[in-house]
Amino acid sequence: MAAENDFVKDITKKSVDFSAWYVDVVKKAELADYSPMKGMMVIRPYGYEIWELIRDQLDRMFKESGHRNAYFPLFIPESFLKKEAEHVEGFAPEVAWVTVGGGEVLEERLAVRPTSEAIICSMYSKWVKSWRDLPLLYNQWANVVRWEKVTRLFLRTTEFLWQEGHTVHATADEAEEETLRMLATYRTLAEDYLAIPVVTGRKSDSEKFAGAVRTYAIEMLMPDGKALQAGTSHNLGQNFAKAFNIRYESKEQKLEYAWQTSWGATTRLVGALVMTHGDDSGLILPPRVAPIQAVIVPISAGNWKETVLPQAQKVLGDLKAAGIRVFLDDRDAYTPGWKYADWEMRGVPVRVEIGPKDIDKKQAVLVSRLDRKKSFVPWDKLAEELGRLLEQIQAEMYRKAKAFRDENTRDAGTFAELKEAMAGNRGFIRCGWCGGPDCEAKVKADAAATIRVILDKPEPPAKTCVACGKAAGHTVLFAKSY
Amino acid sequence: MAAENDFVKDITKKSVDFSAWYVDVVKKAELADYSPMKGMMVIRPYGYEIWELIRDQLDRMFKESGHRNAYFPLFIPESFLKKEAEHVEGFAPEVAWVTVGGGEVLEERLAVRPTSEAIICSMYSKWVKSWRDLPLLYNQWANVVRWEKVTRLFLRTTEFLWQEGHTVHATADEAEEETLRMLATYRTLAEDYLAIPVVTGRKSDSEKFAGAVRTYAIEMLMPDGKALQAGTSHNLGQNFAKAFNIRYESKEQKLEYAWQTSWGATTRLVGALVMTHGDDSGLILPPRVAPIQAVIVPISAGNWKETVLPQAQKVLGDLKAAGIRVFLDDRDAYTPGWKYADWEMRGVPVRVEIGPKDIDKKQAVLVSRLDRKKSFVPWDKLAEELGRLLEQIQAEMYRKAKAFRDENTRDAGTFAELKEAMAGNRGFIRCGWCGGPDCEAKVKADAAATIRVILDKPEPPAKTCVACGKAAGHTVLFAKSY
Repeated sequence: MAAENDFVKDITKKSVDFSAWYVDVVKKAELADYSPMKGMMVIRPYGYEIWELIRDQLDRMFKESGHRNAYFPLFIPESFLKKEAEHVEGFAPEVAWVTVGGGEVLEERLAVRPTSEAIICSMYSKWVKSWRDLPLLYNQWANVVRWEKVTRLFLRTTEFLWQEGHTVHATADEAEEETLRMLATYRTLAEDYLAIPVVTGRKSDSEKFAGAVRTYAIEMLMPDGKALQAGTSHNLGQNFAKAFNIRYESKEQKLEYAWQTSWGATTRLVGALVMTHGDDSGLILPPRVAPIQAVIVPISAGNWKETVLPQAQKVLGDLKAAGIRVFLDDRDAYTPGWKYADWEMRGVPVRVEIGPKDIDKKQAVLVSRLDRKKSFVPWDKLAEELGRLLEQIQAEMYRKAKAFRDENTRDAGTFAELKEAMAGNRGFIRCGWCGGPDCEAKVKADAAATIRVILDKPEPPAKTCVACGKAAGHTVLFAKSY
Repeated sequence: MAAENDFVKDITKKSVDFSAWYVDVVKKAELADYSPMKGMMVIRPYGYEIWELIRDQLDRMFKESGHRNAYFPLFIPESFLKKEAEHVEGFAPEVAWVTVGGGEVLEERLAVRPTSEAIICSMYSKWVKSWRDLPLLYNQWANVVRWEKVTRLFLRTTEFLWQEGHTVHATADEAEEETLRMLATYRTLAEDYLAIPVVTGRKSDSEKFAGAVRTYAIEMLMPDGKALQAGTSHNLGQNFAKAFNIRYESKEQKLEYAWQTSWGATTRLVGALVMTHGDDSGLILPPRVAPIQAVIVPISAGNWKETVLPQAQKVLGDLKAAGIRVFLDDRDAYTPGWKYADWEMRGVPVRVEIGPKDIDKKQAVLVSRLDRKKSFVPWDKLAEELGRLLEQIQAEMYRKAKAFRDENTRDAGTFAELKEAMAGNRGFIRCGWCGGPDCEAKVKADAAATIRVILDKPEPPAKTCVACGKAAGHTVLFAKSY
């Protein structure tokens, strides 16, 4: 481990070069690394442990709402991908194609799944027979491949890990309800676990999923003023049901096409965490998704192995028993100061220091990664106080991120105002849109911003389109985006 | 769900046609299904839930022994696969090749990983610098692709799910110790959780992993007398370290090649469960890996919704609170008798019946899937008694499987005895082997059997080679295999 643990001084300052800072933190905290396979990353254990915590939390929420996991093939024959016209048009340019297998050139090319609607719907057409089979609520945890020319660790890679939910319903209303339920699930994950506030809303037609009737998303605002789409939920209507012949016999014994949804969230969320919360000293992890919530650093001086270490080990046991994810750094080869900087860089929310003086006073020192405030806590109150501090840090991280997002969400009445805001790379711009694709394209061309979401119930609604000045049918958030 | 729930009578008898029985059970119990992608299967939710329980248990054991999960790219550039000569020779015929990506023909073909040594070792050569970095104990949960012409659900498919551990050590001894530790982990999983006895041992050179110095395996005996390799652990020596230049600076400040292991277990284990334990009525699941350990069936007669159902719901809550995976089948459209057969087919270890008479007596009826014995248990003892019964079923399933395995492990002193045993498809044949590849090949050609394992400490050791009659350097188990 030692060889790669360079010091914090090697991390570019967040305020100086955000992009360089991001890559430095991801690599030095050993979350991920570049691989010899161009465009694909390696997720290292510490990064993967964060993903496991995110995944397990989402999985619990999915199961609580009645969803079950399944697994479908990695390869999709080209003819299946082509069945839904919009879908293949949207994804074909990004597909990696298998053309040789078992030493022979294949008769039909196989797509490495960019998403699994095509293969899953082909199975649903076989499994769904009657209204009794509905709703069918399945989810898949999987890897997908979408060819990318320009990639960034976690944020955009040719392969990524995700979950994709695929549900089938008897009515249009139930499908819409499910689409919004899963959008709300993503909001809960983001706000309550990742401590990142999100805006939710519908996508414009130009930004929706290829094959969907409506796409909803959660959008985050990153510290560089760019939006990050962090989860999407699609109402597929009957598009795939008609392309793949998914029909059920209704209670009235009529054969009806079913209604469907799909929804996904990816390893990109780990990148969102890094960007939102980190600082010049490195990563800061929200306690609920921190693989190590507290690190115990014994002060190694004198005969510390006889005096301090046994107490540190006792504290380790107590905190573990209290359900806290805790690690004791008893390495010989490093000084306490080196360890402090190292664990700060890795974003561990709380450091527990125990030194010879603390042994006398029967206390430990808790240091918050967020504001570096110290508190002195008697041994018998440690688990309780640490639990409280972790909750407080979680809440404070959300508050800070929300304050930043709110400060960087501005109104624009005119195109000039919108352009000026965008030139400054300045967050979400809230404005009116007539609904016309030309006005949307104009903003994209002249201000490099896209509609992140169409707000559901804007208060107050915008009156005129920011691009053409005509009546605004929608109030939207524009932003530059990842 | 209803549409696919055909009755038990449609399942081929296990004794009549084992292969047909297996496919019937896998499909009717909704563990898996064929997909339009030839050679690749769909794992349906009930099958995936079994896999989740197996995976989570393995994952716990890996983490307890200090292993951490990571994730490496799906694609491996051809030049990397070629670096270890034996490795590429072994795997090249099974590889699926990506030749087109992002709309362009690629300059170099990309292998869809058949196993990840090549890509992982390329990273290890970057990460491993010093003895302080060792041992490096990583594992990956992933999908892999190996082209197959003849496939069987769970047992042999072109894509499967697995874990692959990849470790790096400072010495040959430590690598061998790790190889054997993980072999023992697989044994624990198989025997204590899947209730399937295994034989462990080393593979002959012709059966070892391409690129390994030594391969060890756990081998199970299926009811049709064929062996199933159910987990392998490889000592890679320095083969990959030399091919990929994985070197570390020793404590003596010398640059040394590292020593490595890799080890894997797959979704094939679900197939092993089905074959080992099932009967003519369908699946029987060992309680420790049963997604539903007990199903409550209320006897629906008269005003059961006012009388029986509330008590069934209370029992559901009590059993859940006791940590038992329990399901209440309160469906209206089916009779209790239909439900009994349905849940038996799905292998739920215990049925809990509650009828109007049981309400009067404040009791429930527990019925074991294994022997269909009934016991009448007062409500206040239910959780405790059910827990005990589940443990008893788990133990009895192992005992039965072990008795079968032991009865079907026979000695052969001569080639004629070996051939006769194999003609009858008769389990493990224990005999001597001189160690020569010609003798091994002769048995394969003439008796269709392969060496499953070379026994570590045979008691007593065989004296002469079953094929050539010369002195036996090894005592081995021959069998036909999946």
